[in-house]
Amino acid sequence: MTNPVLIEVTRGTTVESRHRGTFALVDGAGRVVASAGDIDAPVFPRSAVKALQALPLVENGWADRYGLAPAELALACASHSGEAIHTETALGTLRKLGLDEAALECGAHWPTARTAAAALIRDDRAPSALHNNCSGKHAGFLCLACGLKAEPRGYVGREHRVQRTVKDALVAAYGHDLDEATSGTDGCSIPTYAVPLRHLARAFARFGSGEAWPRERAAAAARLRSAVAAYPLLVAGTGRLDTDLMAHFGERVFTKTGAEGVFCAALPERGWGLALKCDDGATRASEAILLHLLEAAIAWTPDDRAALATRHDPVMRNWNGIEVGRLRPTEAIGAALAGVA
Amino acid sequence: MTNPVLIEVTRGTTVESRHRGTFALVDGAGRVVASAGDIDAPVFPRSAVKALQALPLVENGWADRYGLAPAELALACASHSGEAIHTETALGTLRKLGLDEAALECGAHWPTARTAAAALIRDDRAPSALHNNCSGKHAGFLCLACGLKAEPRGYVGREHRVQRTVKDALVAAYGHDLDEATSGTDGCSIPTYAVPLRHLARAFARFGSGEAWPRERAAAAARLRSAVAAYPLLVAGTGRLDTDLMAHFGERVFTKTGAEGVFCAALPERGWGLALKCDDGATRASEAILLHLLEAAIAWTPDDRAALATRHDPVMRNWNGIEVGRLRPTEAIGAALAGVA
Repeated sequence: MTNPVLIEVTRGTTVESRHRGTFALVDGAGRVVASAGDIDAPVFPRSAVKALQALPLVENGWADRYGLAPAELALACASHSGEAIHTETALGTLRKLGLDEAALECGAHWPTARTAAAALIRDDRAPSALHNNCSGKHAGFLCLACGLKAEPRGYVGREHRVQRTVKDALVAAYGHDLDEATSGTDGCSIPTYAVPLRHLARAFARFGSGEAWPRERAAAAARLRSAVAAYPLLVAGTGRLDTDLMAHFGERVFTKTGAEGVFCAALPERGWGLALKCDDGATRASEAILLHLLEAAIAWTPDDRAALATRHDPVMRNWNGIEVGRLRPTEAIGAALAGVA
Repeated sequence: MTNPVLIEVTRGTTVESRHRGTFALVDGAGRVVASAGDIDAPVFPRSAVKALQALPLVENGWADRYGLAPAELALACASHSGEAIHTETALGTLRKLGLDEAALECGAHWPTARTAAAALIRDDRAPSALHNNCSGKHAGFLCLACGLKAEPRGYVGREHRVQRTVKDALVAAYGHDLDEATSGTDGCSIPTYAVPLRHLARAFARFGSGEAWPRERAAAAARLRSAVAAYPLLVAGTGRLDTDLMAHFGERVFTKTGAEGVFCAALPERGWGLALKCDDGATRASEAILLHLLEAAIAWTPDDRAALATRHDPVMRNWNGIEVGRLRPTEAIGAALAGVA
C-alpha cells in the first residue's frame, strides 16, 4: 500500500517537495475515527512513547518512594533540548537515587538548544550524558532499577530487568504483543519495538482517558499528563512544538514527538488517541500533520487559531526573511478528517 | 505518476523510513541512459546549478578581467560550510572588485561547519554574509555586475541585469525555456526556476563534455570543472560529500548538491550528465542515490570502493556508537541501472 501525500512543500506557487505518511485517530476501544494510509504496518514509535515507558515507574510507587517531583516526572517523558533546566533536573533525579551522571548509559550529544550549545563552547566544555535529550527518561530508568532492586549497570540492555519491565508496560499499553524480530536499537541504546499505528493510537487514547486500563495504570497516566502539563518546558524545550502546545492547551492535550517523523497524542476530552508517521522521517511534516489533526479533533477557538497560526500554517523564509514557500496539507488530509466533528 | 522508493532506511532488520525520488542519467544529445520516476516533471535545481550560473562570468572574460583565481572560481560554484578558507576567499574576490562584504545580498547564517560556528561563538561574533554558503556565488554575481557595468545594488532581483544574464545562461545550458510561472525565490534571495530533470541532466552532460555548446561556453565549463577539481575543499567543506568525491576522483566527476534533495553531476569520460531529486527533500537520500548512480556510471576500482565505502553504504550509529541501521538502495535503483555498462 502506498501511503498518501499528506504535506506539500511549496516554493512560489510550485510544489517543491512532498511528504507521504499515515495517521490513526482512534478511540479507547480501538475504533478508527479517522485515518490515512496503512495503519496496520508496524512503525518504530521511538521517543513518542517515553510517557508509556514511564508508566511502571509511577504505577509501582517507585517515583514516590524516591521522591520524584512533578518536574522530574515530566522530564522522564521528555526529548529535551539540553538547556540548564533539563540537565539540572536530570541530575536532581539521579541524586535522589544516590547516583550521578556517570550512571547514565544514553551517551552524550550536543544540546539541540543553540544557547545551551553556545554556553558549553564558551566554557570550553564538552557535552555530557546529561545533555542527551533522553537523560530524563534514563534517570527514570535508573529509578526503576532501584525500585526493582536490580543492578543499575547495563540497564539499557534488552535482557536487563529494567527493559523487560518497560517492554511489558508497552505490551500492556498497546494491548498488542511485541515481536523481537521487528525490534531495533534506539538512539539512546535501549531497545525499540515496532508496533502498528492503530495500536499505538489506542494506547494514547487510553493514556488520556484510562479506558480499559487497571486503576493504578490509569492513575499513573493521569499523574504523568498532569506533570507534563504543569512543566511543559521540561518535556521538550524553548520554542519546541510539544512545549508550546502543552503550554497553550494544558491538560487538554498530551503530545510527544519521536524521531523519524513520528508523533503521538492523547486527547482526554474526546477519549481519543492519535499516532502518525511520516514515511520519510521528516519532522517538519510530522509537526504539520499533527497540527491539522489536533485542529480537527478538538474544537479550536479563534484564540487557539491565533496563538498557533505560525505552527498551523508554517511559512518558510530565507536568510533575508523573505517568504519563499509554505507547508500545506493535501486534500488527502482533509478527506480523511471530513467525518471528524 | 508516483515515483519509486529508491532508498530504505533500516533499523535492525526492519525498514523504518523510505525515500522516493527520481533520477535521469542522460548523454549530451539528451538520450536517456537510465532513469527512474517522472523525469519530465519540473524540479527546482536550487544550488545544484551554481556552476551553470557561473558560466557567463567566465565565458564573457570577466573572471579574467577582474583576476579571479581558480580557488575563487571554485567558490563561485560552491555551497560552502563557512570555514575560514571560504570566507577569506569570498572576501578576496570582493576586494578585487573594489567591494567588501557589505555588497553581498545573500543574508547571513551560521556556518554549517561546527568548528567555524564554535570559533565565532568563542569570539562573541555573529555570522556575516561571508559565512552564507552562497557567498562565493554572490561574489561571482558581483563580478558579473562589474563586467556588465551594472549597478551592483539589487543584483539578486529577478529583473536585475545580473539575474537576467544568469537566467539566459541557464536557458542556453538546458536548451529549454524557463517559465516565470514555475519560479520561486531561493534561500539566498535570487530567483530559482523549475526545470524537468531530463533537461537538467543533459545540461550537466554538456557541462562535462562541451557537446553541442559553443566553444567559449565549453571552455568556460572546462575551466570551472578544473578549478573545482583543483580546489575541492572550496566547493563544499571539510567532510562534505562533494568535496570528498572530487578530492578522490579529480576531474573524472563534477558533482554538486542542492537543497531539498537535489544532486547533479557531470561525468566527462562517459559524456553523461545526471540529475536526481528526492521527493521529500532529504539530503541523506539524495547523497545515497548519487553514490549508487556514480558507481554504475563510471567503473569503480576496488580502491574507489574502499575509499568510498562509508559513503556508499552509510551506517547509522547512535550516541554510543552502536550501529542501529543503514541506508540501502531498493531494487528500483538496481533495475533502472541494470543496462548501464
